[in-house]
This record gives sequence, structure tokens and C-alpha cells, in this order.
Amino acid sequence: MKRILLLGAGLSASTVIKYLLEQAKENNWQLRVVDQSLDLVKGKLAGHPNGVALSFNALDRNERWAEMQQADLIISMLPARFHPEIAKDCLELKKNLITPSYVSPEMNAWNEEVKAAGLIFMNEIGVDPGIDHMSAMRIIDSIKDQGGEIIGFKSYCGGLIAPESDNNPWNYKFTWSPRNVVLAAQGGTACYIDRNQYKYIPYNQVFTRLDDISIEGYGNFDGYANRDSLSYRHIYGLDEIPTIYRGTLRRPGFCKHWNVFVQLGLTDDHLILPDSEDFTPRTFINAFLPFEETISVEEKWMKACRAMGVNDISRFEWLGLFDGTTKLGLKEATAAQILEKILIDKWVLEPNDKDMIVMVHQFTYLLNGEKRFIESSMVNLGDDQVHTAMSKTVGYPVGICAKLILQDKISERGVLLPIKAEVYDPILDELEELGVSFQELEKVV
Amino acid sequence: MKRILLLGAGLSASTVIKYLLEQAKENNWQLRVVDQSLDLVKGKLAGHPNGVALSFNALDRNERWAEMQQADLIISMLPARFHPEIAKDCLELKKNLITPSYVSPEMNAWNEEVKAAGLIFMNEIGVDPGIDHMSAMRIIDSIKDQGGEIIGFKSYCGGLIAPESDNNPWNYKFTWSPRNVVLAAQGGTACYIDRNQYKYIPYNQVFTRLDDISIEGYGNFDGYANRDSLSYRHIYGLDEIPTIYRGTLRRPGFCKHWNVFVQLGLTDDHLILPDSEDFTPRTFINAFLPFEETISVEEKWMKACRAMGVNDISRFEWLGLFDGTTKLGLKEATAAQILEKILIDKWVLEPNDKDMIVMVHQFTYLLNGEKRFIESSMVNLGDDQVHTAMSKTVGYPVGICAKLILQDKISERGVLLPIKAEVYDPILDELEELGVSFQELEKVV
Repeated sequence: MKRILLLGAGLSASTVIKYLLEQAKENNWQLRVVDQSLDLVKGKLAGHPNGVALSFNALDRNERWAEMQQADLIISMLPARFHPEIAKDCLELKKNLITPSYVSPEMNAWNEEVKAAGLIFMNEIGVDPGIDHMSAMRIIDSIKDQGGEIIGFKSYCGGLIAPESDNNPWNYKFTWSPRNVVLAAQGGTACYIDRNQYKYIPYNQVFTRLDDISIEGYGNFDGYANRDSLSYRHIYGLDEIPTIYRGTLRRPGFCKHWNVFVQLGLTDDHLILPDSEDFTPRTFINAFLPFEETISVEEKWMKACRAMGVNDISRFEWLGLFDGTTKLGLKEATAAQILEKILIDKWVLEPNDKDMIVMVHQFTYLLNGEKRFIESSMVNLGDDQVHTAMSKTVGYPVGICAKLILQDKISERGVLLPIKAEVYDPILDELEELGVSFQELEKVV
Repeated sequence: MKRILLLGAGLSASTVIKYLLEQAKENNWQLRVVDQSLDLVKGKLAGHPNGVALSFNALDRNERWAEMQQADLIISMLPARFHPEIAKDCLELKKNLITPSYVSPEMNAWNEEVKAAGLIFMNEIGVDPGIDHMSAMRIIDSIKDQGGEIIGFKSYCGGLIAPESDNNPWNYKFTWSPRNVVLAAQGGTACYIDRNQYKYIPYNQVFTRLDDISIEGYGNFDGYANRDSLSYRHIYGLDEIPTIYRGTLRRPGFCKHWNVFVQLGLTDDHLILPDSEDFTPRTFINAFLPFEETISVEEKWMKACRAMGVNDISRFEWLGLFDGTTKLGLKEATAAQILEKILIDKWVLEPNDKDMIVMVHQFTYLLNGEKRFIESSMVNLGDDQVHTAMSKTVGYPVGICAKLILQDKISERGVLLPIKAEVYDPILDELEELGVSFQELEKVV
């Protein structure tokens, strides 16, 4: 019986647990899941005979060591910052490792050692990163195999609310980390390349430079630039491509209104605001508006909005921004923390709400003297609040990859991304059976 | 004979050297000046019998130790980041210390030890910080002595070009560190308090929220918010003041046009731009403008400017921003570094140019049932390119403070700022004799 050790049983682990348990009997696996909360793990294992619930602090090397030693494969669903130390243990114990997170420079540096030890450390095998890599690489390899030359690649992804649950004026609810949503695009100037011209967009412009995206049956979206698109040229083997762009999707209007928060400084996460525990939404926003003695906060807000091309403040009214009585009660908080607190009550998922993951790839390429275009898109809706679209699109690829490793079906060794056919082909095929599928639209342009 | 050891003989040290040498004979001082460049020091000492030129690496503890040991007073004109280690040596050697730089938390933490050792570590005794503290504190103390209650304090300072040398469309030349000018206001959200309302301004708004300042005989200025004004409430003993604001001065129009650079991301100092060595000014600015196939860089720039309320691009044309032939040749540079390189050739001081320091304090206070207003302003022009206004307004206070310490006229001990009358009175009085004087305008409002 092979032992899979899963570290971390948070929200995004639900589907990987379900998937591995479903396959455990025929594959003769035991799934051992660790979390601080034993109840949480027990709930997710639901008494399955091949599941073992464990409760200890997976961040403590001494506590996890014996479990890791006995495992055949380790899956880390811990926060990304802990992956390097888990990887270090895996290297020492000669264990294969899967993480859905971005590979860190630290982890990457061990590539040669991992390879020499005959191990697989598979990273970026969730949805974004993960399914984006796999679905893009399948098309890239196919175009190249036909002798085509790719001259443009744009890729968009968004974690959104399903149409049936989309019932607020922002067309948005928090389907993943609210903090990350508030801090979105603050990692630095976004960069991409457009027809051989490098393009840079600072934070304060990101939500104003939007692409229109439309998906049959799902309507329209706005795409805004996602940090560093340039590094993907090398990862995807497109070093000389004249256009590459990665973006994040929101429903139309979201970015334009979010930009008001950005412009006024309400998303700043550095400065701790004195007396923040006494702030109401109204005093909070007023602190970021210029002093004017004779007009109301609403009028000042309207004036600021107009200067940013927003003429309707009803979305902000709906958020309760002008409420001057409810104290937010956050002590020594930054603006970003206060804004998150205001949003979290309004953009909350209701018990029956479903989330939605949307991914779109657009390829332009030359083949036999023709300019061609492929748009490949995937929309996945959550089943419920446990098996959300996010949990499924992260969990299934992780689970299928675990199966491939345990069945010894991956030949490459080292610190890997899922960009080779031996990995993406079986995973994308099985994803399709599981309801995560791409629609392709192809034309000569 | 008392020994003064001066560490660092850069531009801003010229006047303090001149001042101390002029007073050296009657006070029986020897001034020992260290810099990496012996020629530089010799040039500044000009063969004065009380001056000794030294050349060693003042940043190396072993090299400076013996000199520090023999000194009666140490003045550090080194970059501010080196002051803590110099201060540590001074504490060990029981030497008094003067620096014109902001006191660091590290230095501040030694206050009790410095006090116990009976030493003076005087900081922030240049112009800004320095003369601003002293001139403000003299008025604050005087209002309080009369029984007045200060309800508003705004203070502005700017390092600018003298009117006689002001001959470019930006009304600006680099009279101090170009890098600091390009990075101005990037330290974080600016904060101040206005009629008991906390106010916050993010970087991308700072250059759009301007105060009008006018000085008799010198015309108009724009003031923009200078980082954290709130901490000055405590320093100045104005903990309960309803309005406090510190600003930086530029000539009208400068900020509005500078804001275009800020908005487009041209002042970003984080992202290293690939292929930057091949950039011309034109390719550089184009990289921060959206891709548009059918219009020129000039038209795109104009469009971006208009969106920011700037309708005339002649200032940008004058900077040569649309030059598509001159390669800037900066390898692995950030946008801020490239912008600095473009500006440095245009905003250079010509051999006969003079600089100008402008400082303005505005106090509103209640006295005997009346609301009163005092505006106190100082304008100082450089003598030449050695004894610039910057060098004089930094060097004189440092020099006078050195005299006060050596003559044992300062009674307070510890890590100090020049905010007590025993320090600011003699310094401001002597500054006036040296031509650095404030004009006061007082009225009932």
C-alpha cells in the first residue's frame, strides 16, 4: 500500500482529498492528511477506510519528520512560503513532492540535486498556475508540430462568481483570499510585450488599461495586465514571440470602479492609520479625500470619481461607504485592511452561491502563409461551497499528477512545471472527463 | 588647541569648512578634514594654517579610530546611513557629535547612554531638517510664552534655482541629488492633519493636490505634501494641534507636469527594464504608453497628458523626450534611472548658475480672543557653485553648533534636535548676521 501524505486541509484541498480517496482502493493507496484541526481533516475524509486523519503542526520539522519518512509521495497545500523547507526535507528523505504554488527561486536552485536524486518536485500544478500552463502548452506544441509560427499569445484567468449567483452591482464576490484581491497588482509595474514593443503599466494605471474579452454563453469580461508576462516567453519556449500578455478577468465595470480605490490610496498596505479603530466607512474614505469645508463626503467622493471617469457612485453606496455610524473597530490597521473589512461583508458568498473559474487563451500564428487565430476557453462552475470551481481546478490536476507519479508515468526528473506532453496530456484528458474542458474557436484572420 | 574632526568633504561641506576655518584662529581650533580624495580636501582648506587635510576611508573603523580618539568634536557629513556606526564610536570614545541628517531610530535609542556619558549628539541641524526646526520653534515658543494657542502650522521648503538663473520651461534645475528628486514622495502615503481630520495622499495623488504659496519679491510656488507631517506634532510640542502640514516647494506648473511621469510609471525604481541600454528617450517613453498602431509617440503622449489635465507638451519636447536617435546607454536600468539620465543633462547647473533655498512657515493661533496669523519666510541665494544656498544653509548651522559645543554653551545632553532656545537662539541670531534671515508677516484674520 502506497502512502500519500497531504500537508494542509484548507478550502482548496477538499477536491484533491475527494479525488484521491475515490481512487485509493483500486490503486492501493493510503491518504494521510495533516492539519492543525483534526475535526477539519476527519470531516473531509468522512470515515473513508483508506484515509487517515492526522493533527500536528506541519510547519514544525520535528513533528512532520516521521510522517514524511514513511510517505511515498508528499503533497503540500500549505501556504507557498513554506514549500522550500518542505522541499528541503523531501530532498533529504528522497521523496517526490507536488505543490500547486509558483516555484520559488530557492526551490528552482535545487533542480540539479533533485534530478540527481531521481526525484520529481512538481510545482504550479493547480489552476493558475497549472491548468493555464498545460492547456497553453498543448496548443503551443500542436502549432509548432504543424510547422506554425506563434506571433501572439494572450492568456487571461479570473476567479469570479457564477452567473446564477451574480446578484450584486459589482458582479463580484470573494471566492478566494480577500486580502489578495485588495492587494491585486501591487507587486510592481506590470510588463508584457506587444508587437515587439516592451510595455510597462504602473499600479495606478493597471485598472484603466483593459482588454475586452467575450465568451459564448458567459458574456463579457474586462482583462487587466497581470504582473510579469515576459518570463513566460522562456517557460513556454516562445523566446522570440513578438506579443505575450497575461491578464486577470473581471466583469465589465469592476476595474473602472476599483480604480477609484487605487487612485485615492485606499488599497495601501504600508501606512498604519492612527485611530483606525474609531473609523466608520465614512471617516475612512474622508481621510483620503481632500479637505473641503463646504461640501459633503458624498460630494467629494463624486468629484473624485468624476476625475477618474466614473459618473455613477451607486456601487460605492451599495458598499455602505458613506455609513458614518458603524465603527469598523480595526486597531492599527492599514487602508487595505480597512477596505477588506468593508468589502468582506458585502462580497461574501451566500450558502448556496457558486463560484466560477474562467480561463481564455488567444493565439495568433502563421501557418502555410496564412495568419490564423485560436481562442481556447474554459469555464468551470463550483458544485457547492466545498467543491468550488477553485477547489476543483486546483485539486484535480494535483490529484491526477499524484496518480501519474505513483504509477511511475512521468519520466522527467527535477524541479518541474507541467509543461511537457507526458504530464499535460493525461491530466488534460482526465480533466475533461471530470468536467474541466476547453472550447476551441479557430479561424483564419 | 581643540581638534574638530570633519568626516566627508563633499559639496555640502564647503561652507562649514569655510566657516570653521574663519573662526579657527580666535577660538584656537584645528580643523581636520577627511575625505577619500586628498586633493578635494586640500582645495577646500586652501592652505589655511589651522586646517589639516587627511585622506583615508572614513567608513573603515580601523582607519578612522585614531583620528576620532584625538578629536574634541566630530562632525559627520557622510551619507546618513553611516551615522549610527560613527555615533557608536563616539559613544565608546566619549566624543561629541554633530550630523545634519535625520536622526535614525537606531541613534535615538542611545539617548539615555549618551546623556549618562554627558555627551551631545546633535542631529538634524542643516537646513531641512535644521533651520526649519529652529525657526519654527522660536515662533512656537514665543506664541506659547504670550499665552497663545497654536491651531495651525504649515511649513514648506524647497531647493530651487535662483530667479537670475531660472531660464528653462520647468523653472527647475538640479541643485541637489538628482536621484532624490526623481524618487521624491515615493517613501509612502503622505499624511497630515487638517482641522482635526487625518488626511492621506498616495504617491499618485501627491503632485495633484497643491497649495499656492507666494513670497513678496520672489513670486509664486506650489507646495506638495511631504511624507509624514504627523510626527512633527510631538517633536514641536504641538500634540493636540488640529492642523499640521509639511510641504515641498516647486515653481508653479512643475508638479502638474511632473505628475505625468508619475502617472505613467516613469519614476518607478523597482523593475529593471530589459534592453535598457538600447533605449532612446522615445523608446523609453513609448514603453510606458499603451500600444496604438496608428498614432505617433507624440500623439500618444499628448493623449496621456490630456487625461491628466496637461494640454501643452512643450516642457516635454524641451526635455528631448521624443528624440528617437540618441541612445541613453544605461544597462539594466530602472525607469527612474533612465528618467534621471534624461533630466540630468537638461536640468544641469551652468557654471554661473545660483541656487535658492526657500522656506515658509504659516502659523494660525488664538491670542486674547483673536485669531492671528504669522507667515515667516526665508529665501537664500547661492554665492556661487561652491558656496551654494544649500551648502550655506546646511553648513552655517552645523558650524555655529560646533562653536556652541566647543564653547560649552549647550547645557542639554543626549541625542538632540535643535529645538531648544539655548540652541536655536544663538544659531538663528548668527545666521541672520550671515545673511540667512526670516521675514515675518503678521496679521489678525
